[in-house]
Formats: sequence, C-alpha cells, structure tokens
Amino acid sequence: MRIVALAGGIGGARFLRGLKDVVAPGDEITVIGNTGDDIHLFGLKVCPDLDTVMYTLGGGIHEEQGWGRAGETFAVKEELAAYGVGPSWFGLGDKDFATHIVRTQMLAAGYPLSAVTEALCDRWQPGVRLLPMSDDRVETHVRITDERGTRAIHFQEYWVKLHAAVDAEAIIPVGAQTAKPAPGVLEAIAAADVILFPPSNPVVSIGTILAVPGIREAVAAAPAPVVGLSPIIGGAPVRGMADKVLAAVGVEASASAVALHYGKKGAEPSSSREGGDERLVGLLDGWLVDEADADSVAAVEAGGISCRAVPLLMSDPAATAAMARAALELAEQVRR
Amino acid sequence: MRIVALAGGIGGARFLRGLKDVVAPGDEITVIGNTGDDIHLFGLKVCPDLDTVMYTLGGGIHEEQGWGRAGETFAVKEELAAYGVGPSWFGLGDKDFATHIVRTQMLAAGYPLSAVTEALCDRWQPGVRLLPMSDDRVETHVRITDERGTRAIHFQEYWVKLHAAVDAEAIIPVGAQTAKPAPGVLEAIAAADVILFPPSNPVVSIGTILAVPGIREAVAAAPAPVVGLSPIIGGAPVRGMADKVLAAVGVEASASAVALHYGKKGAEPSSSREGGDERLVGLLDGWLVDEADADSVAAVEAGGISCRAVPLLMSDPAATAAMARAALELAEQVRR
Repeated sequence: MRIVALAGGIGGARFLRGLKDVVAPGDEITVIGNTGDDIHLFGLKVCPDLDTVMYTLGGGIHEEQGWGRAGETFAVKEELAAYGVGPSWFGLGDKDFATHIVRTQMLAAGYPLSAVTEALCDRWQPGVRLLPMSDDRVETHVRITDERGTRAIHFQEYWVKLHAAVDAEAIIPVGAQTAKPAPGVLEAIAAADVILFPPSNPVVSIGTILAVPGIREAVAAAPAPVVGLSPIIGGAPVRGMADKVLAAVGVEASASAVALHYGKKGAEPSSSREGGDERLVGLLDGWLVDEADADSVAAVEAGGISCRAVPLLMSDPAATAAMARAALELAEQVRR
Repeated sequence: MRIVALAGGIGGARFLRGLKDVVAPGDEITVIGNTGDDIHLFGLKVCPDLDTVMYTLGGGIHEEQGWGRAGETFAVKEELAAYGVGPSWFGLGDKDFATHIVRTQMLAAGYPLSAVTEALCDRWQPGVRLLPMSDDRVETHVRITDERGTRAIHFQEYWVKLHAAVDAEAIIPVGAQTAKPAPGVLEAIAAADVILFPPSNPVVSIGTILAVPGIREAVAAAPAPVVGLSPIIGGAPVRGMADKVLAAVGVEASASAVALHYGKKGAEPSSSREGGDERLVGLLDGWLVDEADADSVAAVEAGGISCRAVPLLMSDPAATAAMARAALELAEQVRR
C-alpha cells in the first residue's frame, strides 16, 4: 500500500511515527513536508518542519520538546550572542547547526532542496520518503498590527518570537504562487492508495502545502481516499496556537469547522466560505474528531465528509498508533 | 609609539601578547595578519591566523594547544562527520564555528574582510589594531609529489592533514599577485616608529604577507627600523615545521639563513640568492637569534644586519615580554 501524508512539524511527525507502527511490511509512506516555515538564519537555510519529521522518525528528536535534537548543546548560539549576532529567540543547537550547514552547503553547490533532503535522510533513515512540498522558496508571512503599525513578519517571528500573542490578520505564503511541486510530489499523490492529513496546522502547515499550485488539485483529483485528523480538540488546538491562524482565514477553531474548511472531496468551493481563496476545492473523504467532539460528527457528515470520533491525543506511542489505525480504517470505509 | 608587526598564527600571537606587556600606555600596535592559510570549510570562511591572534590577545585561546578556543566542544564537527561531511582533519570547535558563521555572513552581506575582522575584534578587544594583509582572497598552496603524482594542495592540507611529512617543492600564494593590501596596511607601515617580524614562519606566514604587492616595498621604504626574531633555534623550528617550507624556497633552516633571506634593509636582492623571487628586496635592520645560536651573530652582521643573541623561547609570559623588550631595544639601537 502506498500512503501519502502531508505534514507540518511536531504534530505531523508524531503522527507519522504512529503510522509507521501500524503499516504492513512493504507499505510505502511518502511524506510531503511543509517548507513554508523555512527561514534563513546566520546565513544558513533552516527547514524546521522537514527536520522535525526527519529527527522524529530517525530517532534523533528531543522527545519532550518535540523539536530539535536530543542531548543538544548551545555553544554556537551562545557565541553568536557574544558577538551580538541574533536572533536570540530561535533555538538552534549545535547538533542542529550541523544539519543546516550541510543543507546550506549542498544548496550552494546547486542541489535542489529535495536532493538535499534525500541526502540528509540517508543518515537518518526515517523509514519514509520525505519530500519537501517544493524546491522553490516559499516563506509564510503573517500580517499583524501592533504599535509599529501594520506589517508582515516571518511566520517564525510570529510563532516563536511573539508566541502568536498578536492577532494574525492574514497568512501570506510568499512565493507560493510561482512555486512548483518538488519532483515526485504530484506523482506520489496520483499513485497513492491512501492520502492522510495528520493533525498538523490546517493553515500554516497543510494549508501552505496545498497553496503550492498543483498540489491541492492533485489531492482533489486523486483516486485515493483522503482522510484527515482534527488538530482541534474541544475547541482548542492540541498544541501550538492554530486557533490564531485559523482566525486569520476566517475559520472557527473547532473540529468540524476545520473539516468543512478542507471541504468534501470533489465539491466546488462554497460561495458562503470566507477567506476568498479562489483555489479552494473540496479535499476530504473522511475526518476523525476526538471523542470530546463527538457532537460535531453530525455537522461534518452533513458536509458530505464521513466522520468518526476516536481518541485523538497522541499521549503515547500506542495511542498514536491507534489514531493512525483509525485513519486507515476510515480510509477503507470511504474508498469508492 | 606606533608599532607594526607582521604576524602568522601561534608564534606571532604569543609574541604579540608579550609585546603588549612591555609597551607604554598610549603606544599603538597594528598587526598585519596573514590570510594565506585561510580556507573555506563547510561553506564557511575560516581565517586561522587572524583568529589565533584575536583569541590569544582577547583571552579566548586554548593555551596549551595554541589555537582554537578554551573550553571548546565539538558537537557540530561530530554531527558533520555523522552526515559523512568532512574534512575530519581540521579541528573546528563549536565556539570557533560561531566566529566563522559571523564572518561568512558579513562577507556575504558585502563587508570586506578588514571590516569583518574589526567587527569580530569589537567583541574580543585584543588591544591591537588587527588588519588582514589583504581583503582579497589569497590561498597558500604547496606543491608536493607523492604516489598520486605532483600536485598543489592547500596549505592547511599540507600542514594539518599531512603534517608536512612530504617534501614541499614550492610554496604558491595563489591570488597574491593580484591582491591589494587591505585598507590601512600601507599607511600603518609608512607611519610606524618600529616594524617587527615576530618569530612567525618566514615563508608561509610573514613571507605570504610580504608577497602581497606593495607590502614588501612599503616595509623596505619605511623610515622605521625593522627588527625580526628568529623562529629557528639551534637549526630547528621552535614549533611547527618551518624547516619543510624553508627548504621549498631554498633557505637553510638556521637563524642566520632566515635573516639573510629577509636581507639587509635597502639592499638589492643578491644574485646568489636562491628561489628566484624577483620582488625580494632587503628588509631587516636588526635580528634577534637565540643564545643557542650566538655563533651565527657574526654571519648575520656580515650581511649588514645588526644582530643580538638573547633567549628566544616563549616559555612563559615573562620570557616572552623580555623578547619583545629586546626587539624594541634593538630597534632603538639601529634607528638611523
């Protein structure tokens, strides 16, 4: 079986680890990773989401933190600070620096990000095929208004530095309109037996992947069932601040609203939908909500999307594996 | 008093620390640093000699080792090795990496190396004005012949990787012919009250600085007395493998031969001198040899260079300060 998953960072990576636990030997998992939160720091290309997936599946992740390397040290960062060179708010550890140095050196030598990612994965052996959504530069910016006026800042500045404490007025995937899907992305989607949306951020993770022209259309046109898992439980994000960026695209922070935002597969965009994204087309065949949101199942199914309520907290490997199993089971149920 | 010193790495840096100990308040020391052993590693610009001077005078040096940072760790290097990215023979520590990251980022932003060096020294406060010999790229290569044939390799590969275990057939400062002295270099030499050649490598450190067109001529034309200290004691280098590169330029590894290689200030190059470097002009007014080489004083003075035998082992700060004092005293004695 060929499984394709669109993934952001921590939530996506943890779900993928559960997915690896439940697939059969010989099943192939292709992960299309978000690169919209990539950032250039200290002259180096940093790909937080790709690295989180790679480290998590490759056994190098800092478990409690969810990002960065286990047993990390911060000598380089402290020295950079001693030189007065920042930003100080982005936590790059020494081990992590090596990844960015290798990546930057390969990019400078002319390799596309997809080839670089493959080379990095040669070491980590994540057990999945990890593809960046695009080899082209896409950077998610967030429009905010504060005492300095209205301006767009890098997503990482919004997320990590400001902790999303200011309202996000718009999410702008700079460069997405002219970006092309990385080699293999569209082919993997077309050839998939199952397509999964892990409980990643629907706006700045999966939404950014879908903003690369061709990817959303490929998912909508894929013969495979498309099943997603709600990142919202009981009206709040399981982790992170997804509610802040959902508000920016006019979507309520609820398990059902996110499902209806993705839309029923094959459906044309509803004129009543807010946000004005003309490329929105329906994507989902199935949707999992947490048991706490069992009362939202009806609303999702009223939108034409098959929905089940199951435990969605990735509290331990067994719980995460059960979520992945539930997603695959729902995919079989909705397979046309 | 304005003192100018041409310096390589470890030997030069230690001497400069002694010099700082003996100068009067208000005296200004300008150091013209060798950049011929600079190397690009992992996409980063590494300037070993400039950094050794900066760290030594700024209090950050690994004392026993003579290069690199005190309390250094090697997480980045170990990770790079885990990615299969080398070279492994060049010991870049985590703290050191930060210096190279800052430097590379500033260079990429368009700042010349001299401005970058000044910015790095803002942190280290070395107590001297540290100028790279040139803002242009100069790379010392060494011609060798081994089982792979005759070829030129980077000086660092010859020195650090091969430990100079193969004969050096030629020393080639690639790029030197078209390099220009960095801003301030010629002005500092012209305005100097004393010019010193610390006991640095006469070929690949001081020789490379002098290979930048204009610098040798400026030293030869300077009104200030020029005094050097022998890096050779008893027919062998005090540290390093200077004898190997001296042989490449046809100079015997002896305290007197090095002095005569630099030549008497104002003298035209002797036709009997080997090496064939047409730009060689006499540079020295005075020369210090170690007491072990007292019997070479006469040969140096026969070449028109005032010479004294004093202890030249930088065994501790007091001994090093005494060497610097002896050099300044000799400068006064030979001042015309």
